[in-house]
Amino acid sequence: MSKVPEMLTSRAVPGVGPGKDAHRRHLGALLRHVHLRGPASRTELADRMGLNRSTIMALTAELTSAGLVREELPDQTGRAGRPSLVVRPESDRVFVLAFDVAVDRLVAARVGLGGTILDRREAVRPRAGADLDSVVEVLAGLGRRVAGTAGPGSVCVGVGASYCGMIRPGDGMVRFGPDMGWVDQAFGAELGRRLGLGLPVPVGNEGHLGALAEYERGAGVGFPNLIYLHGDVGVGGGIIVGGKLLNGDGGYGCELGHMLVNPYNGRPCGCGSRGCLEAEVGERALLDAARRPADLTGRDAVRAVVDAADRGDPLARAALDHIGDWLGIGVANLINLFNPGLVVFGGMLRDVYRGSATQVRTRLTANVLAVSRERVLLRTSALGDDATLIGAAELAFAPLLADPTGEHSGGRHPAEAGTAR
Amino acid sequence: MSKVPEMLTSRAVPGVGPGKDAHRRHLGALLRHVHLRGPASRTELADRMGLNRSTIMALTAELTSAGLVREELPDQTGRAGRPSLVVRPESDRVFVLAFDVAVDRLVAARVGLGGTILDRREAVRPRAGADLDSVVEVLAGLGRRVAGTAGPGSVCVGVGASYCGMIRPGDGMVRFGPDMGWVDQAFGAELGRRLGLGLPVPVGNEGHLGALAEYERGAGVGFPNLIYLHGDVGVGGGIIVGGKLLNGDGGYGCELGHMLVNPYNGRPCGCGSRGCLEAEVGERALLDAARRPADLTGRDAVRAVVDAADRGDPLARAALDHIGDWLGIGVANLINLFNPGLVVFGGMLRDVYRGSATQVRTRLTANVLAVSRERVLLRTSALGDDATLIGAAELAFAPLLADPTGEHSGGRHPAEAGTAR
Repeated sequence: MSKVPEMLTSRAVPGVGPGKDAHRRHLGALLRHVHLRGPASRTELADRMGLNRSTIMALTAELTSAGLVREELPDQTGRAGRPSLVVRPESDRVFVLAFDVAVDRLVAARVGLGGTILDRREAVRPRAGADLDSVVEVLAGLGRRVAGTAGPGSVCVGVGASYCGMIRPGDGMVRFGPDMGWVDQAFGAELGRRLGLGLPVPVGNEGHLGALAEYERGAGVGFPNLIYLHGDVGVGGGIIVGGKLLNGDGGYGCELGHMLVNPYNGRPCGCGSRGCLEAEVGERALLDAARRPADLTGRDAVRAVVDAADRGDPLARAALDHIGDWLGIGVANLINLFNPGLVVFGGMLRDVYRGSATQVRTRLTANVLAVSRERVLLRTSALGDDATLIGAAELAFAPLLADPTGEHSGGRHPAEAGTAR
Repeated sequence: MSKVPEMLTSRAVPGVGPGKDAHRRHLGALLRHVHLRGPASRTELADRMGLNRSTIMALTAELTSAGLVREELPDQTGRAGRPSLVVRPESDRVFVLAFDVAVDRLVAARVGLGGTILDRREAVRPRAGADLDSVVEVLAGLGRRVAGTAGPGSVCVGVGASYCGMIRPGDGMVRFGPDMGWVDQAFGAELGRRLGLGLPVPVGNEGHLGALAEYERGAGVGFPNLIYLHGDVGVGGGIIVGGKLLNGDGGYGCELGHMLVNPYNGRPCGCGSRGCLEAEVGERALLDAARRPADLTGRDAVRAVVDAADRGDPLARAALDHIGDWLGIGVANLINLFNPGLVVFGGMLRDVYRGSATQVRTRLTANVLAVSRERVLLRTSALGDDATLIGAAELAFAPLLADPTGEHSGGRHPAEAGTAR
C-alpha cells in the first residue's frame, strides 16, 4: 500500500509543515469531502482531491479503522459491471451536539457526521431578562435528551452552539446579547461545564454560522462571495468574502442589522439607537405595519401576514411593501459594498422576502450600481430554520475534520471519547 | 554558497510548486521587503524572513546581479564594530510609471523601486464629457515627460494607473466612470498603446489603490482589517479584509460612496440615485452647505471652508457639522459591518474629517455597537494626495515583485526592458 510521501525539505518553505502535516491535511480533506458532499467512490475522491487511487485507499483505510467512514456498495446505479465501493461517513455512529439559542427558541440536536440531524428538541425561550443559569439549564436538559437517543457504540466528537448576539471568538463569551440584555456572559464555558462531557463548547454568532452553513452545504455552495441575512425577531447576518467569513478584527463583523437606514424618525432598536435595518424590517416592524396586536409575536404571526398579503389583504400587502422597501435599501447598500454573487435570505426573512421580493428588487434597480447588479442572484435559505443549528454543528465538527485521527485537534478521537450518555 | 533546498516531493501536496517556485517566492519576498520597508541588513532580513544568512546572501547576490538591489555601508549608526552591509533597492535606476486619473486632475509620476516619487507632473482634468482619446493623450504626454528625466541606464519595469471609476480587473476597462459619463471604455489598453513601451497597463479603482497603498506603506501598516475612505469630489473607498482587498465577485466591491444614507430628500448623486453617502458628504454638498458660489469647486475651496470653520466662521462650522453627521453615519455603518481596526480618511476627506471629527465621533458613539467601538482607530491618510498614485505604482511593481528575475512575471526584467525615453 503506498504512502503519502514525506516532505523532506519542508522547513525551508514557510507555511509548509513536515510530512505528518500533509498526511493530516489529506485525511481531513477526504473526511470533509464525504461529510459535506456525501458518499463518493474512491475514483471520484481521487479526481476531486488530485491524489492517486492508492493514496485514497490508504487514507480511507485509516479513516475506516478510526470508525469515521465505511466502504460499501453504492445504491443501485443502473450501470453494468462491478460497482466501485463508495466511501460513506459513519453518520449514525459519529455525532456532535449542536445548540441554537435564537431570540424566540432554544434548540438542541444530535447531528451525525455528514450533517444529518438525527434528533432535535426545541423549547420556548425563557422570557427576556432570563439569566445565564436558567438558559444553560434548559439547553443542557435538551442536550441530554438528544444524546440519550443515540445508539450503543455511538460517540460524541464535539459540541457547538449558535447564539443570537455578539460572541468573542475562542471562549464563547457573549459580549452583547441585546434580546436578554446580556453583557459579557460566559455562555460557552458554562454550557460546557453543565453538559459535563469534557468537551469544549465553541460558540458562534447565529448570522455567521447561518452564512457558513449555507455556503458549505446550502444555497451558497459555489458562491465564494455571498451575503446571508438572517431574520430572528431582529436581523443579523454573515458575509463570506473570498470563501471566508468576514470576522473583522475582534470577530464582531457582519452586524448588518445595525446599519442605519432611517436617520429621520427611525424606529427604536434593541441596540439603543434608532432607524437600524433591524428596527425597520424586524418582526415587530412588520407586525406593527400590518396593525397586528402589540402582544402578538413569533414566526407564525409573520407568516400569517405574508399569507394574508398573498390572498390580497390590502393592509398586509401595504405592510410588506413598506418593509420590503427598507429591506431593499439594506440589501442595495450591501451589494454596492460587497459585489457578491449571491444574497441569501434566511430565518424569518425567508418569509418576508417571499412577500416583498418585488419591492426589494425595485430598490436594487434604483440603488445598486449597474455593474454590481449584472450577475447577483437572490435566493432564500436552503437549510431553512436549521441553518444556524447546522452551522453550530459544523463548528463542533471542525476539530475532527482538521485532524481526524490526531490528538491535537482540540476534539476527541471517537475511540477515546465516551458516549454522551 | 548555500542554495535554497529543492522541494523533492512538491507535487504530492496541492498548492506547493517545485523548488523553483520556492526560490522565486524567496527572491520576491526579499525584494518586496526592502521595497516596502526600506534598506535592511542581511541579519535583519534573515530574522524577518525566517531564512538563514547564507540563503539571504545567495538571494541578495542574485538580486544584485539583476540590478535590482545593491549592498552598501549603512548610514552612521553610532555603534562600534564593523557595520553590517545593508541591502538597498536600486531606487534611482529601477522605476515604474504611475498614473492617477482623479475627478479633478490628471497625474503622472516616475516612481522608483522603494516607493520614492522621482518625478511628478500634473494637469487639470479635461472637463466632463471629455472622451477617452483626449484624456489618454494628456496622460501619455505627462508620462513621456516624467520618463524623460530618468538618468542614463535606468529602466522602466512597469506601468500602472488609478482611475476614479469602476474598473474591470484584468484588462483595465472602465466599466463605469460617472464623472465623465464613461461606460465600457478600454482605458488601460489605450493608454498602453499610446505610451508605446510594450508594457501592459493594469488599472485599479482609486479607492482600492489608495487602500492598498495605505495598508502597505501608509497609515494602515499592521492593520489587516481597515477601511479607507477616499474623497475626490465624490467619495470612494477600499476595504482590506484579513490583509486582502475586498474585490467582490467581479472586482467592483467597496463602493461605499453609494451607500444610501438619506432615503428622504437625499441630494442627487452622479450614479443616478439620490441620498448616497457621496451625494451627502462630497465636495458639492460641503460647498453648498457653506453657501459657496455654485461655480466654485476644487480641494482648495474645501480647505477654505475647513479653515474658515477653524477660525470660528459660523456658516462654515454649521456646514461641517452637517456634513460630519452624514459622514459619521456612513462610517458607523461600515464599522458595524467590518469591525475594522482602523478607518483612514484620504483625499479630500482628510480635510473634511479634520473639520468634523467631533461630529463623526458623536455618530460613532450613538450608532456603533460597543464591542466594535472598543478598539477602532480613526486616522487621516499618511500618503496624502499621493495615496492613489502610490497605489498605481504598486500595481506596476507587482509583476516584478512576484518574479524578480523571471520571464513569466508579466513585467520586464530590467536587463531586457528598454529605457522609457
